[in-house]
Amino acid sequence: MSAEISDTTAAAYARLAELRRSIDNFDAALIHILAERFRVTKAVGALKASADLPPSDPTREAEQIVRLRNLARSADLDPDFAEKFLEFVIREVIQHHKQAASK
Amino acid sequence: MSAEISDTTAAAYARLAELRRSIDNFDAALIHILAERFRVTKAVGALKASADLPPSDPTREAEQIVRLRNLARSADLDPDFAEKFLEFVIREVIQHHKQAASK
Repeated sequence: MSAEISDTTAAAYARLAELRRSIDNFDAALIHILAERFRVTKAVGALKASADLPPSDPTREAEQIVRLRNLARSADLDPDFAEKFLEFVIREVIQHHKQAASK
Repeated sequence: MSAEISDTTAAAYARLAELRRSIDNFDAALIHILAERFRVTKAVGALKASADLPPSDPTREAEQIVRLRNLARSADLDPDFAEKFLEFVIREVIQHHKQAASK
């Protein structure tokens, strides 16, 4: 133990490192699930284009928002954050669709 | 089969419903992992406050960005999106810390 750092502070840094390992694991999980989610939305985009289905579906999106807000509540997550998160992801999906269409 | 809808379109809608079930499952997974991630960052905030550690750590944040960009590349996800995603989540964490500090 260094003289410059108290036992309490050293213990706090050890606990912090432990918590950060959990955060890193969760982030890796999030990135991989997002990657897989985008694979599916890419398939949705291709399907809609090939079958001439409308590119956007406001009813579906409204249902997703209600569903995610309820899931968030049950997981003790701010429902407004869940909605912002879905919007953030959907914006990226639309971006992908636009890029795909311009190719 | 309705007379107003072709077999091809009906098949496309059936496939669309199937893909959407996958998206819904991924979204439920994302919401629950995010909820757990915020539980951990809440613990980080409480630990930093009680042990008088600095609230922000730019080195840690830079490391997280590099790591997530690499994970995204290996999962065939746009690294810029992964970075934007992390920033989006961190902004929410900072918001939580501010709310906790003002209580």
